[in-house]
Amino acid sequence: MKKFLNNIDDLLEESLQGFAKAHSDIIQLNEQPLFVTRNKQTTNKVALISGGGSGHEPLHTGFVGLGMLDSACPGQIFTSPTPDQMMAAAESVNNEAGILFIVKNYAGDVMNFEIAAEMLDCPYETVLIDDDVSLPKTHSTGRRGVAGTLIVEKIVGAAAEKGMNLADCKSLGDRVNQMTATMGVALNCCTVPALGKPTFELAADKIEMGVGIHGERGHDTMDIMSATDIVKIIANAIDADLNPKKSQKVLLHVNGLGSTPLMELHLIFNLAAQYWEKKGIEIYRSLVGNYTTSLDMTGCSITLTLLDDEMIHLWDAPVNTANLRWGC
Amino acid sequence: MKKFLNNIDDLLEESLQGFAKAHSDIIQLNEQPLFVTRNKQTTNKVALISGGGSGHEPLHTGFVGLGMLDSACPGQIFTSPTPDQMMAAAESVNNEAGILFIVKNYAGDVMNFEIAAEMLDCPYETVLIDDDVSLPKTHSTGRRGVAGTLIVEKIVGAAAEKGMNLADCKSLGDRVNQMTATMGVALNCCTVPALGKPTFELAADKIEMGVGIHGERGHDTMDIMSATDIVKIIANAIDADLNPKKSQKVLLHVNGLGSTPLMELHLIFNLAAQYWEKKGIEIYRSLVGNYTTSLDMTGCSITLTLLDDEMIHLWDAPVNTANLRWGC
Repeated sequence: MKKFLNNIDDLLEESLQGFAKAHSDIIQLNEQPLFVTRNKQTTNKVALISGGGSGHEPLHTGFVGLGMLDSACPGQIFTSPTPDQMMAAAESVNNEAGILFIVKNYAGDVMNFEIAAEMLDCPYETVLIDDDVSLPKTHSTGRRGVAGTLIVEKIVGAAAEKGMNLADCKSLGDRVNQMTATMGVALNCCTVPALGKPTFELAADKIEMGVGIHGERGHDTMDIMSATDIVKIIANAIDADLNPKKSQKVLLHVNGLGSTPLMELHLIFNLAAQYWEKKGIEIYRSLVGNYTTSLDMTGCSITLTLLDDEMIHLWDAPVNTANLRWGC
Repeated sequence: MKKFLNNIDDLLEESLQGFAKAHSDIIQLNEQPLFVTRNKQTTNKVALISGGGSGHEPLHTGFVGLGMLDSACPGQIFTSPTPDQMMAAAESVNNEAGILFIVKNYAGDVMNFEIAAEMLDCPYETVLIDDDVSLPKTHSTGRRGVAGTLIVEKIVGAAAEKGMNLADCKSLGDRVNQMTATMGVALNCCTVPALGKPTFELAADKIEMGVGIHGERGHDTMDIMSATDIVKIIANAIDADLNPKKSQKVLLHVNGLGSTPLMELHLIFNLAAQYWEKKGIEIYRSLVGNYTTSLDMTGCSITLTLLDDEMIHLWDAPVNTANLRWGC
């Protein structure tokens, strides 16, 4: 294993210190317990808190700032943050309008956010993200939350910034989640530093279809194939879930998992856009790049969100975070 | 080799089509010959044109837009664009205030931009970028242009947007280039699609110090070492070139070469900031992420720019491109 680090145990902390230093105009870091907040406390708005295991940067810390999250709680790599982090973050950003937790559907995250929420002395709601259509809806622990998470964070973040109340933010978040579907594919797996080798091996002529973001295997190991065929398989799975109608406006998000060149992500975007345009779907907004990564995994995911006018308006609203920024 | 592609020969074109589709609010693509321009023609300002081999995305196409480039000419992977691309780009964006070419110092790029410029029927100047301090100043073909290029593009782009004339833009660009030094390190090499394998091999316990951005070997193959030691070697080389004085304000840019997780880039940023802060240097502005890549190379570069008030003002000015955006 070759990585830029000193001691594995210090990687997360050293990295967050660098993140905080590089973006001190937008965020600040609390070290004990670990959480990130905006550097300007807000008043009179629903506070959005997300978090989860580290290793998915820029998710979630890179999305703290005006028009998006109020706080993010980073756990150790691929490990849920602890309730004390979430409690401290909530106490830090609570401003009487209530707290909305945005939680990716993993057992540890769900449990720890619940523990923290129940100890809170303020109104709160939780939006659970489960956009990964590579698992059936009937899967025992439900579907996973993956790259669609940032779309919920962006749209609900804009709504909260405009003064939407807690119940409506919760309902909007659930709606965006329901309108969003994602599926991922890996060409090579990632290496968790503490493990020191890839979490699974893929032969030189194999790809892994339906991967999540924690180096777990997908639902199918397949022969390597053209980008066009990869896009077809993923787009078909998304269509089976969302069933977009002709003339539907959509947001198309192609997300790199860590080691995939932007050039290839744009090629995938082009093919995915062509696939849906042929069906009369309107690619109305787009996002291409590394946003929800899985350390150094080579691969990508495709996310489609069915948009309505309110969602478009909120997607376009100003956002000023370390890794998503426009209109500010 | 596993990559997301259909035919290797179509990779660049398919990718650029995706790029153009994803960012149609900012840029437009001309396919024959290949070049990218802003989607709104400007008037009465110096037009900035850059370009070079592809495989370094988001450089240069991702930096076309308000406050930065007027046009970018992408060559084939790691191959100079041709004079007809540059000529066509120049004719497309020329608006009587003259053209400034920003050229990384590689023989092919320099030659082709010269050929194009000499055929032009309008005033022009060229800023040659040679920020890579891993080669001695006396190197036969001079030093290479690497990650410092975008800093020149941003600062001169802002100046041109404010109406600075051609001679002053040229002089400013030269000054920023002189005040900028970069050195890169690779943990693993990149795979050029047409070659199908890494351009050089590195053992599991070796790193390559002083790499460029084309998969060429660096000046030293070294044993793997801590991130702190890597930063020291690079920072020493940069200091030897720039000799920053106490209280000097600087821009610190940590650039990922393609496959390095953001978490590790922030760790490197943290160590580099500590290194210079200990010497009394003021880390006044920062940029961390994948900006000048080398396909899927695992590695990073550190760039330092000595800032004066004019440069700070121009760095902070609004920019609205696909991959660098603030204040708009």
